[in-house]
Amino acid sequence: MIRSLAPEVAVVDLTHDIPAHDVRAGALCLARAAQYLCPGVVLAVVDPGVGTDRRAIAVEVGEGESLLVGPDNGLLAPAVAMVGGAGRAVSLINPEYQLPAPGPTFAGRDIFAPAAAHLCNGVDLYELGDPVDAASLLPGVLPVTHYDGDELVAEVLWVDRYGNAQLNVDPDEVAEWGARLRLRFGEGLVDGRTLVQAPTYAALGPGDVGLVVDSYGLLSIAVPRASAADRLGLAAGDPVRLVRLDDDDPGAHGVTSSVQLRPRG
Amino acid sequence: MIRSLAPEVAVVDLTHDIPAHDVRAGALCLARAAQYLCPGVVLAVVDPGVGTDRRAIAVEVGEGESLLVGPDNGLLAPAVAMVGGAGRAVSLINPEYQLPAPGPTFAGRDIFAPAAAHLCNGVDLYELGDPVDAASLLPGVLPVTHYDGDELVAEVLWVDRYGNAQLNVDPDEVAEWGARLRLRFGEGLVDGRTLVQAPTYAALGPGDVGLVVDSYGLLSIAVPRASAADRLGLAAGDPVRLVRLDDDDPGAHGVTSSVQLRPRG
Amino acid sequence: MIRSLAPEVAVVDLTHDIPAHDVRAGALCLARAAQYLCPGVVLAVVDPGVGTDRRAIAVEVGEGESLLVGPDNGLLAPAVAMVGGAGRAVSLINPEYQLPAPGPTFAGRDIFAPAAAHLCNGVDLYELGDPVDAASLLPGVLPVTHYDGDELVAEVLWVDRYGNAQLNVDPDEVAEWGARLRLRFGEGLVDGRTLVQAPTYAALGPGDVGLVVDSYGLLSIAVPRASAADRLGLAAGDPVRLVRLDDDDPGAHGVTSSVQLRPRG
Repeated sequence: MIRSLAPEVAVVDLTHDIPAHDVRAGALCLARAAQYLCPGVVLAVVDPGVGTDRRAIAVEVGEGESLLVGPDNGLLAPAVAMVGGAGRAVSLINPEYQLPAPGPTFAGRDIFAPAAAHLCNGVDLYELGDPVDAASLLPGVLPVTHYDGDELVAEVLWVDRYGNAQLNVDPDEVAEWGARLRLRFGEGLVDGRTLVQAPTYAALGPGDVGLVVDSYGLLSIAVPRASAADRLGLAAGDPVRLVRLDDDDPGAHGVTSSVQLRPRG
Repeated sequence: MIRSLAPEVAVVDLTHDIPAHDVRAGALCLARAAQYLCPGVVLAVVDPGVGTDRRAIAVEVGEGESLLVGPDNGLLAPAVAMVGGAGRAVSLINPEYQLPAPGPTFAGRDIFAPAAAHLCNGVDLYELGDPVDAASLLPGVLPVTHYDGDELVAEVLWVDRYGNAQLNVDPDEVAEWGARLRLRFGEGLVDGRTLVQAPTYAALGPGDVGLVVDSYGLLSIAVPRASAADRLGLAAGDPVRLVRLDDDDPGAHGVTSSVQLRPRG
Repeated sequence: MIRSLAPEVAVVDLTHDIPAHDVRAGALCLARAAQYLCPGVVLAVVDPGVGTDRRAIAVEVGEGESLLVGPDNGLLAPAVAMVGGAGRAVSLINPEYQLPAPGPTFAGRDIFAPAAAHLCNGVDLYELGDPVDAASLLPGVLPVTHYDGDELVAEVLWVDRYGNAQLNVDPDEVAEWGARLRLRFGEGLVDGRTLVQAPTYAALGPGDVGLVVDSYGLLSIAVPRASAADRLGLAAGDPVRLVRLDDDDPGAHGVTSSVQLRPRG
């Protein structure tokens, strides 16, 4: 569709590998890529609500330098926030810039791609539909950390293809904690493991479970050349906690064996 | 290969996700996309008969506006039919427009891609090989519906990544049947289920099994946010039947529970 | 990143389907493609050692006609050898041509892609880092055949998506052996099977296990419309042996049943 409507446009395929219906995975992927994209029009479609009254939207960012097009279901929000927030926004309801559709179920082809193509061609945002208040757009669903007593309450955002479990934790949050800290995880958070802060995946030793700054600038749990997610039973959305180790805690000085924090029998 | 032979050509990747050897899935995918493609050269390769005497062909459509290149195994036929039928056609046998191949097994690289590139460069179709009668091309294998008594005999064409089971049924064929109808399916067609005609996937209620016009304009069997194919045990190629419900049939008025049409014991 | 730094460059995606960490599979894929690529810059990243002291390199081939960019872990070496060997080479250490990275773990985005883009833009190779001796680059890991007595010692290089098991054997090595030969394989090489040399996959009869020249010019083990790897339990890296059959060997004249070469009890 884009090639038909805007033949001169170069299309860069960021990914076609988002799992079906997984708005959150799509939102994360887009937010991670956002700061590396060159100015232009970004088309994103993960759209389980297609055919409902969820809006189809286009949003300006960077003072009009770039535009994001997609469903108003939280998919775009983290990326919009990452690049400075929304400017003008419209609900894509002008049928002149849409494809006559055989059914209501393929908005990617019939609504979103034509909108992206027309924007590339220089059609003004407000031609495509009705202005909407950027504050009314559905916010993203990426969690933020907080403290429960001494424990940093966090979450597994994503498991990559290597099995590394990315957390919603900035390295600065635990930079002062020393080389080792404790992870609580699993059902009821009763499992425990000592994590080794390491500069790279390759710096981890055999048997280590590491906490490494990943390529998006967030901390991820990793084990050498294997899947941390499989080893620890972690999946996207799982709650975890990071606990500072005292200096007199044996785990703080190089004991890397697993610690089991189970309730007493 | 295309880049080497025709460096100015823009290549649009429709898909690389057709299952190995599945000519029918490739033919369906291409036929669905055909009406949305911009004029040009279409290259399609799903080719289990590579190295046999199946022909390699190129076919004009739209009075020469576009060309399809691929094996003569039924892969191109439904798309050709969808856009108005074949004009000139050739068997790709001129070695001057082929790559010298180390073996006979990679026609995509050695025969089809070079042919597509040379056509993009303006080489005339008849330069690439011997003219063949379009009527001699292997027809596609997409089934058509028919009636057996009162029952519409249909088939599952395809199960998409969401588990929706697309049928070879046009919405017009059952438009007058009312909101509910019965599906017969499974081994010996002994299983039954009431289907709800719905405008969108999202309009289906919990427990509903829906019949929805999909993005290609055909009816598909769907369940809300889950796989209809898994739920009902449907796969591509399965025979199914649609049966009109009388007004006094309890299923015609909102009973959505499953009906089992098993042989009497 | 490439689009940002070198917007005029056409990017051709050879594959994104190399298994995680599988340097050897990436090296094979690249070596197979190398002779079909048009002149330019080739970017390859399979990089389990990211963040270690493995070098990031760029290598000239074809008297400067093309450049390969990637980690110095053997990934590039077979392709470099395939196109005539390395000319100038550098270690990519100049930070002016790299992206400031949040962590040390995404060299594809932060080091390799920027280097490829700058090379496309005409930046001289020596601007990107320190010259290194091409002889110091890590060699590839593709095995060569040899004889053990009368037996040709070979290896399964790769299993493709059809289940064909490609060997590191040139057709010339067994061209004089006649239509049938014996394969020894499995744990301890105690399993045996008669192979039929066939010009194409399609020429194999039901029950045949074939030895076919594949699209890369190497011999591969294949069965008709099924996975030879599954049937025989073969995987990439498995050692196998090819044994010439005497004319008076019953297997040399059309008996295709499996032969079991087990140790005597």
